[in-house]
Amino acid sequence: MWNSDHSIRILDQTLLPGAETYRDLSSVDEVAEAIRTLRVRGAPLIGIAAAMGVVVSIRQRGSGACPEEASEGATGQRLLEHVNKACQTLGATRPTAVNLHWALKRMCERAEQACAAGEDLYEALLAEANAIWDEDRAMCERIGALGSALIPDRATVCTVCNAGALATGGIGTALAPIYATHLAGRRPHVIVPETRPLLQGSRLTAWELTKAGVPCTLIGDGMIASRLRLGDVSCVIVGADRIAANGDVANKIGTYGLALAAHAHGIPFYVAAPSSTVDVATPNGAAIPIEQRESDEVATWQGTRTAPLGVGVWNPAFDMTPAKLITGIITDKGIFKPADIRYSSQTPVSS
Amino acid sequence: MWNSDHSIRILDQTLLPGAETYRDLSSVDEVAEAIRTLRVRGAPLIGIAAAMGVVVSIRQRGSGACPEEASEGATGQRLLEHVNKACQTLGATRPTAVNLHWALKRMCERAEQACAAGEDLYEALLAEANAIWDEDRAMCERIGALGSALIPDRATVCTVCNAGALATGGIGTALAPIYATHLAGRRPHVIVPETRPLLQGSRLTAWELTKAGVPCTLIGDGMIASRLRLGDVSCVIVGADRIAANGDVANKIGTYGLALAAHAHGIPFYVAAPSSTVDVATPNGAAIPIEQRESDEVATWQGTRTAPLGVGVWNPAFDMTPAKLITGIITDKGIFKPADIRYSSQTPVSS
Repeated sequence: MWNSDHSIRILDQTLLPGAETYRDLSSVDEVAEAIRTLRVRGAPLIGIAAAMGVVVSIRQRGSGACPEEASEGATGQRLLEHVNKACQTLGATRPTAVNLHWALKRMCERAEQACAAGEDLYEALLAEANAIWDEDRAMCERIGALGSALIPDRATVCTVCNAGALATGGIGTALAPIYATHLAGRRPHVIVPETRPLLQGSRLTAWELTKAGVPCTLIGDGMIASRLRLGDVSCVIVGADRIAANGDVANKIGTYGLALAAHAHGIPFYVAAPSSTVDVATPNGAAIPIEQRESDEVATWQGTRTAPLGVGVWNPAFDMTPAKLITGIITDKGIFKPADIRYSSQTPVSS
Repeated sequence: MWNSDHSIRILDQTLLPGAETYRDLSSVDEVAEAIRTLRVRGAPLIGIAAAMGVVVSIRQRGSGACPEEASEGATGQRLLEHVNKACQTLGATRPTAVNLHWALKRMCERAEQACAAGEDLYEALLAEANAIWDEDRAMCERIGALGSALIPDRATVCTVCNAGALATGGIGTALAPIYATHLAGRRPHVIVPETRPLLQGSRLTAWELTKAGVPCTLIGDGMIASRLRLGDVSCVIVGADRIAANGDVANKIGTYGLALAAHAHGIPFYVAAPSSTVDVATPNGAAIPIEQRESDEVATWQGTRTAPLGVGVWNPAFDMTPAKLITGIITDKGIFKPADIRYSSQTPVSS
């Protein structure tokens, strides 16, 4: 959220569930650090935070200087360069989630437009960042309403990682249909894989579901296939960090194994994401860059090594689930077959 | 191993890889506690430790009393009851691994035989426990030799949990073919899933492979399917805690998901286990009891909660992999198709 001085206040998600600590970010570097270290995470929320980071970059230049600069040729050009530099810094933090780049592109375009029209750049970008946030909140609501229709009464639903309120500006993507079902009194129960290495399942999803009064059961990631075999899981709903034009989906590491297990047991597998997650410029999953993170995330725990020194580690933050394993993609523009997701960009928002 | 006073010395596996701490166990309760808390773990090693625990139970009765008692009717009967009670205590520690019950049954039968023949019970049971241990070591060697033929030169092999030297009295079951391949100079590389919740992969398998100079790469359990998709994994080899008559296999939780991923990518999936792991009395995997362990194994880490209070946890220690996903079962009696594993009990030991 914004502080009154328009620095950014975030809930530091790395400290959950042990502590609810808020941090104020008043520079682009602080925002970039918060995204890189996952204090702020979740594809939609990263987009919102980055957009707010661009506003902070203008604020860093000093108050009052903006409108004058923006309306005068050379000075306006320097200000645009400043905005572009901020976007580069923020865009370099994480490679996989496309919402980050989508939001930054939108901020850059708005900055150019504002400059050309002699608008107050600061006010224009603040309004744009708030619009991105408001739209995300509305997208979450629509995903919730659409997805809730796919969930039977008293259903057990499996997810992975955290694609909830903590990952968005609203009630979440994958968790939105679950919240909508819960609010309708239809009593969903959620299976939450812990999601190693960073435990977004146990630390974040179990935390926000418990806070909201939605019953959930925590399992280890290696337990997913056995849990789905029990026969009571109605469907799987996961989020997405990028959806390629052919319907392949990049999401948190572990999603692909979950999709294979759902397929083996005939359980519908849904992806829930705002339409800004669809990247028609990426033809398929193989073309999505997958972020590799530090080995210590796997080989240590709170500073203590869990593996011997010298052992190699492979630590991709995301994986790719092929379109053929996906039953449907729930977006703010409707529910699509993976093969049709590229048309979502031409589809008006569903009511 | 035995101490000179025939108490048992174990490496406490819960403290690896941070510390190599040995503990002396001089009572049945101490042995049972060590098995229950996984200080001693791995299906074959549990069998050996339990057999040694029976010897310790006789030793607890006081030295010298045994031969006289055993050779006299009523006193011998009391001694047998004492042995049976020890077997019950030790057998109640963990329900899934059948080697435990196999070893205890063997010890009980040897005790009855010794009593009937007026033998020195202590010496007879000590010899039987040592025989179980020696045989296990030899079984590991044979599994290694047989399984090594399935591994190409410079192969990448994936395993799960720890079915290595730490899990047996010898060089391991799943890791035995890898050690044999390594010793033959054929340079295997091992993919090691960390194996939550207790991290036997990172703490134990990565530790013993690194110590032996076998290169390995640690991954999170959720990364398995993506790692197998890379296309360079020659085969998967896992251990087993119980093999049913139809070839279904109970093994560490996560094995089933690994088998589904191997199947999806056409990668051979082998189970390696001594023939004592085959339980012809259990018709199929559904009949194998699966141990449920405490929720704190998943919801806390070294005393710190990783999940909010009040969240439910499902924590089975094992899962069941159906025979149809298994390429072959490597035993000391040869390599069997899962459907033929029930014949292994009638098969002479392979040379």
